[in-house]
Amino acid sequence: MNVNQIPTRTLRPVPGAHAVEIIDQTALPHDYRTLRLATLDDAAHAIRVMLVRGAPVMGVTGASGVARAISRNADDTALASAVATLAATRPTAVNLHWALTRMHAHLAPLRPSERADEAWREAGRIADEDVAQSQKIGENGLALLTPIAERRGRLELMTHCNAGWLATVDHGTALAPVYAAFDAGIDVHVWVSETRPRNQGLLTAWELRQHGVPHTVFADNAAGLLLARPGQIDAVIVGADRIAANGDTANKVGTYLKALAARAADVPFYVAAPRSTIDFCCANGRDIPIEERDGDELRVLHGRAIGDDREVGDGTARPARLRQLPADEAVANPAFDVTPARFVSRIITERGACAADGLRTLYPDSCHD
Amino acid sequence: MNVNQIPTRTLRPVPGAHAVEIIDQTALPHDYRTLRLATLDDAAHAIRVMLVRGAPVMGVTGASGVARAISRNADDTALASAVATLAATRPTAVNLHWALTRMHAHLAPLRPSERADEAWREAGRIADEDVAQSQKIGENGLALLTPIAERRGRLELMTHCNAGWLATVDHGTALAPVYAAFDAGIDVHVWVSETRPRNQGLLTAWELRQHGVPHTVFADNAAGLLLARPGQIDAVIVGADRIAANGDTANKVGTYLKALAARAADVPFYVAAPRSTIDFCCANGRDIPIEERDGDELRVLHGRAIGDDREVGDGTARPARLRQLPADEAVANPAFDVTPARFVSRIITERGACAADGLRTLYPDSCHD
Repeated sequence: MNVNQIPTRTLRPVPGAHAVEIIDQTALPHDYRTLRLATLDDAAHAIRVMLVRGAPVMGVTGASGVARAISRNADDTALASAVATLAATRPTAVNLHWALTRMHAHLAPLRPSERADEAWREAGRIADEDVAQSQKIGENGLALLTPIAERRGRLELMTHCNAGWLATVDHGTALAPVYAAFDAGIDVHVWVSETRPRNQGLLTAWELRQHGVPHTVFADNAAGLLLARPGQIDAVIVGADRIAANGDTANKVGTYLKALAARAADVPFYVAAPRSTIDFCCANGRDIPIEERDGDELRVLHGRAIGDDREVGDGTARPARLRQLPADEAVANPAFDVTPARFVSRIITERGACAADGLRTLYPDSCHD
Repeated sequence: MNVNQIPTRTLRPVPGAHAVEIIDQTALPHDYRTLRLATLDDAAHAIRVMLVRGAPVMGVTGASGVARAISRNADDTALASAVATLAATRPTAVNLHWALTRMHAHLAPLRPSERADEAWREAGRIADEDVAQSQKIGENGLALLTPIAERRGRLELMTHCNAGWLATVDHGTALAPVYAAFDAGIDVHVWVSETRPRNQGLLTAWELRQHGVPHTVFADNAAGLLLARPGQIDAVIVGADRIAANGDTANKVGTYLKALAARAADVPFYVAAPRSTIDFCCANGRDIPIEERDGDELRVLHGRAIGDDREVGDGTARPARLRQLPADEAVANPAFDVTPARFVSRIITERGACAADGLRTLYPDSCHD
């Protein structure tokens, strides 16, 4: 793959086309390809089937989707309909809903004839702010990680899912401090969880490789063992899809298990996210809706052979295959879980780092928005 | 699949052939097929690449492997060599080493000419004992589960990996109480973890389906969320690969995470295993060797398409694929983890159930064997 073909932003307006170009995240890490989202349905579909994923970039994709939707007809009904269509795609990550609410609040007071151009401008501002916030998260996270690196002489971090530049417009959330540490010359190595069922950990591995950051992939089940080994992991750092006012954090399913194991091993557990991920309207994690996705995500129908193919006994043994879930087995597939604030050591935002129950100290103006 | 073709035991001597027939567990749940193990190398290979897996049945397979190995030459060197070859296959599950030690201790005092026939008899006794012990584990586990079922009006159990009849000669360890509960008319439903990277949970789903026990499969990452939901899970029950004298329990990697989540939710966490899984020579879990398996087990090279195949924008979108780990990514693949005794509510053996730190009350005669 030619790294030079990769743009500096995950989402770019296509000049003059009333469209945006995104990276098809379902093709990675195998193929790098871009897709053009030209209609409201394109945007809704891209978010729903996870061509675009990652809470911050879903917000920007939603904002751009509104701009596209009202480019020909921008009356109140069209605006409300676009917002409702996009809001219905995915329930848990709040950045999408935050961006749609912001777009509606910004555009509704305008005359319909002014809305289309202003929608593109506002979507652009949201994207620019996301880049700036991610960069600040990197700096603020680096300030937390540097003392650990100085004490340990290196930095062994564990992350879950993908909260890198692919999940934002640039830089990332959880990975922004990793890139900042690497660029600052710190000897950093990242333990990357596979993140079943969708294997977003392989996006993280791909990103880290582009940047030259050493890393090791492991099956999610191994997180407990790795964290329990004395001195193996210095800190866990993850992104978030929605943080409640009290610091309870919804993130990719499996995050909570890593937080439990980090606490049991007395390893710090950091959550990195911008303001748009914090939902002060949610008092605590019980109020966060958890998306249940299609059980098909657990059904892998063509597993590669594993093991060798030596013949055994009567010669009938074949190479071991990855076991596949039959289509008629019942499946539960919740996409997120909630890590209670008491397991979160610090939340890192663009404004700094705070205790999980101290978000209002960073955002005193945002208690009821 | 014709259930009637499935034998009543997972391992059967082939009359007159100095061989045993096993079920090829790598073909399940897709195909049911048996394999004949006719040489020492066959047995060692079958254990190493997990054609046979499950701590108890690995022990019996090892014992039969010794019998086959010395059928022509049973001198001291051949006996010691057979034991050493089989012992080198897998380090963590102690039943294999227990069975090999027992075979050696039983055969070494005999004259070489007597050893071959006696080896088959001893291997047969180990198999028969395994069946009887599994049955008792079922009864003893049922005694623990019945009061929960009476209080709740049903039984929602979570298990990990496969500790059913496929993992033993018959009945199972963790699943023996499940089958006993189902057969006793209790309304039981089992939450089955996928168990990456080898997906042994699908063996459990297959077994439960043969028996008619309702069940739901989930990605390992979802265990924390399921356990945290009030009233969703009544108990977790797992098998074991090695239990240290103090009750620390090595089992399939991922077990520890489920134990942490069970404790956080105040859900009982049970370990079911026969005497041969308990290693009184291991003072605690730190002494248990953890097998590191080939990273290839995480590399799935032909993931099925997931999501729909609707075209987006310029028509270039393809269906989402399961992301696959590139061959040159570094991988950590520990096969087991250790759950500290303090997270284990009860250990269920053929002699009854005890606190995790109370194994010596069940086996007062076994403190130093």
